[in-house]
Amino acid sequence: MADDKKLTTRAGDFSAWYNELVLRAELADYSPVKGSMVIRPNGYGIWERMQRALDDMFKATGHRNAYFPLLIPESFLKKEAQHVEGFAPECAVVTHGGGKKLEEPLVIRPTSETIIYHMFAKWVQSYRDLPLLINQWANVVRWEMRTRLFLRTLEFLWQEGHTAHATHDEAEEETRRMLGVYRTFMEEFMAMPVITGQKSESEKFAGALRTYSCEAMMQDNKALQAGTSHNLGQNFSKAFELKFQTEAGDIEFAWNTSWGVSTRMIGGLVMTHGDDNGLVTPPRLAPIEVVIIPIWKTDDEKAKLTEAANAHRDELTSWMGRGAHDRLRVHVDARDGMRAGAKYYEWELQGVPLRLELGPKDLEKQSVFSARRDTRAKAPIAMAGVAESVAKVLETIQSDMFAAAKARREAHSVRDIASYDAFKQLMDGDGGFVYAGWCGDGACETKVKEETKATIRCIPDEEFRSAQAPTACLACGGPAKHEAVWAKAY
Amino acid sequence: MADDKKLTTRAGDFSAWYNELVLRAELADYSPVKGSMVIRPNGYGIWERMQRALDDMFKATGHRNAYFPLLIPESFLKKEAQHVEGFAPECAVVTHGGGKKLEEPLVIRPTSETIIYHMFAKWVQSYRDLPLLINQWANVVRWEMRTRLFLRTLEFLWQEGHTAHATHDEAEEETRRMLGVYRTFMEEFMAMPVITGQKSESEKFAGALRTYSCEAMMQDNKALQAGTSHNLGQNFSKAFELKFQTEAGDIEFAWNTSWGVSTRMIGGLVMTHGDDNGLVTPPRLAPIEVVIIPIWKTDDEKAKLTEAANAHRDELTSWMGRGAHDRLRVHVDARDGMRAGAKYYEWELQGVPLRLELGPKDLEKQSVFSARRDTRAKAPIAMAGVAESVAKVLETIQSDMFAAAKARREAHSVRDIASYDAFKQLMDGDGGFVYAGWCGDGACETKVKEETKATIRCIPDEEFRSAQAPTACLACGGPAKHEAVWAKAY
Repeated sequence: MADDKKLTTRAGDFSAWYNELVLRAELADYSPVKGSMVIRPNGYGIWERMQRALDDMFKATGHRNAYFPLLIPESFLKKEAQHVEGFAPECAVVTHGGGKKLEEPLVIRPTSETIIYHMFAKWVQSYRDLPLLINQWANVVRWEMRTRLFLRTLEFLWQEGHTAHATHDEAEEETRRMLGVYRTFMEEFMAMPVITGQKSESEKFAGALRTYSCEAMMQDNKALQAGTSHNLGQNFSKAFELKFQTEAGDIEFAWNTSWGVSTRMIGGLVMTHGDDNGLVTPPRLAPIEVVIIPIWKTDDEKAKLTEAANAHRDELTSWMGRGAHDRLRVHVDARDGMRAGAKYYEWELQGVPLRLELGPKDLEKQSVFSARRDTRAKAPIAMAGVAESVAKVLETIQSDMFAAAKARREAHSVRDIASYDAFKQLMDGDGGFVYAGWCGDGACETKVKEETKATIRCIPDEEFRSAQAPTACLACGGPAKHEAVWAKAY
Repeated sequence: MADDKKLTTRAGDFSAWYNELVLRAELADYSPVKGSMVIRPNGYGIWERMQRALDDMFKATGHRNAYFPLLIPESFLKKEAQHVEGFAPECAVVTHGGGKKLEEPLVIRPTSETIIYHMFAKWVQSYRDLPLLINQWANVVRWEMRTRLFLRTLEFLWQEGHTAHATHDEAEEETRRMLGVYRTFMEEFMAMPVITGQKSESEKFAGALRTYSCEAMMQDNKALQAGTSHNLGQNFSKAFELKFQTEAGDIEFAWNTSWGVSTRMIGGLVMTHGDDNGLVTPPRLAPIEVVIIPIWKTDDEKAKLTEAANAHRDELTSWMGRGAHDRLRVHVDARDGMRAGAKYYEWELQGVPLRLELGPKDLEKQSVFSARRDTRAKAPIAMAGVAESVAKVLETIQSDMFAAAKARREAHSVRDIASYDAFKQLMDGDGGFVYAGWCGDGACETKVKEETKATIRCIPDEEFRSAQAPTACLACGGPAKHEAVWAKAY
C-alpha cells in the first residue's frame, strides 16, 4: 500500500522520482536476485494491454506466434561472428543440469536469432515456404551490471519477431513495416511520439545489416530507444545454412529480419507521462480507465452512494459504443475506513486516467464530478448519456497526452545549434535532441560520446529531417554526409 | 509441409502415432537442445486459446497476473526441506554470468514458490493485505532425462497461481476452487473428462500439505495428470517469514496455495481426441474452426469459386450470433496447384473441426458440403442461414467429442476387479482405470508400482466414488481406508 509521503519531484531529482514512482505505484519491485525485478500486477496489467494491442497488429500483418527454447548451445552463438562478440559478454551460462556437469554449456537466450534460424533451416526448403513470419513472446537474460527498473534489467520480457524472405528487398520492406507498426503502437497507444530512423554502424544490432529504431524523448530530455527493427541480410542464413530453392531451381540463402520491443516500454511510458503526483497512464493502455469513488458521511448515505456507484459502473461497462470487444474498464472504490482524499491520492499515484466522484449532492443533481488525471481538470458530467461522455473524455485525454508529449519534445529539439561548443553546453545543461550534421566517421561519434555522453540516436527518416539539410559535421566541421539526431540516452 | 504418408495407427504403436502426429501436424518439433522442444505455430495457436480461456477464468475468480524472476538463488530452494529434496535433482544451474563466476549459483525456476513467497513476505503485513491472489504465465525448466514432446520436456510453458490467506480453511477453499476451474476448463474447452481427487503422500507436491489433481484417460488407457492444485499449508510461509497481523493484533503465518497447468495439456488433447488421420481439435480451442475449400477445374470456375468461398468466409466471420467477442474462426484454402484431396488430408491432419467444400454444383444448389473432423460425417448445409448452422454443428462437435471421450473412459474403468492377479493381468494388457481399495500404507503403493507400473492416480472426490465402497486393499487385502484410482500414467 502506498504511503502518503510526497514523491520526490521530477525537477528535484528525475532519477529518484522515477524509482519512487515505480515502487510506490506498485508497478514493480526489486528482487533478491541482483538486477532482476518483479513486475507487480499494476505494471503487468499495462504489459498485458501492450501485448494484446501489439499481438493484434502482428497478426494483422500475417505473423504467427511460436515458442523456441530458452537454453541455447554455446556453440550456436559463435556461428555469427559479430553476434557472439556483441552478446557473449552478457550471457548467463548454465553449466550444470540434473546434478551433472554438462558436456557443452548452455546460454540463456539473450535474443533468439541463432536457435530460430537453425529451426528455420529445417523448415524452409523452397520459395513456397517463404516468407516465413514468426513472432515469439518470451523472457530473455542479459547480464547487466547497472540496472534500472524496467529500463535495464538482467531479465526482461519482450517479443521478438523473426522472418525469412526470398529477396533483400522483401526483407527490407518487412523491416520497415514492423518499425511502422511499432511507431503506430507507441504513438496511438502509448501516446508517446517517436522519431524513426537508422542506427549508425556502432549502434546497430550485433549481426545486422541495418538497424532501425524508434527514439522517444523522456521528460529529462534524454532519449529512450523504445524499439528496434533489424534487416539481418544473409548473415544468419549463411551461418545457419538457411537456404531455399528459387522458382528457377537455384539454391539461395534466405534474407532475415528481426524486431523487438520489451517491458522497457513501461519505463518509457512512466518517463513520458508521469508527473509529481505519480503515474499518468494513457487510457488505451490503462487496466482501469475510470475509478468511481462514492463519498458518504452516514451509514445510510454509504449504502445509497455505493449502490449508485455500482449502478454507474454497470452502466459504463455495459455500454457498447466502443464495440463489445472494448468495454470501458471501470472500478468502484468503496473501501471503508479510508478518507476520499486518501483514495484520490492513491489512484492518482497509480495513474488512473479519469476519476468520478459521487457524493449526495451529485446524486441530487443527477451528475458526477470528474477529475482528469493528465490535466487535473475537474468538471461535472451529467448522468444522462454518461458512458458516451466518459468515452469522449478518455479519447480527449489520449490525444491531449500525445499532443503534450510531442510539444515537449519539440520544445527541446534544436535544429540550429551554433557550434560544437554550444552543443557541449546544451548537453551539460538541459539536454534535448540536436539535429546536426555528421561526416559519417565513427571517430567523430566516439569523440562526441566521450566528451558529452551524447550519441547519435539515429539518422532520422525523411519526415523528421530539417528543411535545410546541415552541411557540416557537428564534431569535425567537415562536410556532412547525414543529418543525425544527437542526444544523451538511457 | 506434411507429406502424404499415412500415420502409424494408434492400435499399431500408440507412442509412434503420437510423435508422428505432433511432428507432421506441425504442433511441435525437436530442438538442438536435448529434451527441449519448439512449439510451432499450429501448437502455439492452441496454447494461446487455452491461455485466453484460463486467464479469463482466473481473473473472474479475482486473480491478477504478475511476473517473477526466472533465476532463483540456490539458497532459496533449500529453505523448505521437502521442496529442495523434490526439486534440487531436476535443476539447471547458472554458475557464470557476464563472463564471471557467480558468488552464489542461481537455479532456473523449476517452479516459483520460493521466490514468490519471499516477495509476498515483503508485501503482506496485515490481514487487510489478504487474500493475495496472484498468477504468473511463465516458462520453467526441470532437467528431465526421458522426454516426450509436450508431455515431459526440459522446458515447458505453464501458469502458476500463488495465493496467501489468513486461515487454513480459506486456503483449502481456494485450492479446491482452482481445481474446479481446471476441471471446467478441461471438460468444457478441451472436451476431456477428468477425475478430480487427492494425491497420496508419495505423489503430492514437494512441500505441500495436500495435492489435488485432474486425471484424464488417454486413448491407450493410461492416465495423464493434467493439472494440480496444492494446499501448501504454512510450510512456505514459515520458511519465508510470510507473516501478518490478524484483526485481533496477533502475528500469524499465512496459508498458501499454488496450482498449475502447462503445455502438457496439448499432449493430453492430442491423445484424448486424435485419430489415425491426425489431430482432432475441439472447436473451442481450434485456432481455425472451419476451413473452406473451393473446388474448381477451369480458370473461370476458379475465379468464381474462390470469390464465393471468400464471400462465404466473410458471412461466417461477420456473424455475431456467438457475440462480437467470439466470431467464427474461418480460413479459405484457395492454394493453386494442389488437389482438393491433398488439402483435405492436410487439414484433417491438423485437426480443423469442420471442412466446407464448395464446388460448382454446390454453388448451383446454394449449399456447401460439410465434413466433420470428429465423426467424418458429411452433409450439405444450405447457404441460407449458413453461419447459424455452422455454429450449431461446431457446438455439436464440441459436446459429441466430450461424450465420446467420456464413454471411452467409462468403457475402460473397472470397479469390480476380482483380485490383485486380475489387476496385474489387466495392467499387462489393456490397462485402464481401476477403482479399488487401499489400506493407506505407502508400502502397498510401492509394491503395486514395482510389480505393475500402475500408481494411485488419486483418492477420487465423492462424485467419482463407487456406490459400494471397496472394503479390502488391492495389494495386501487388509481393510481399505480409501477407494483409490489405480492406473499406469504418463
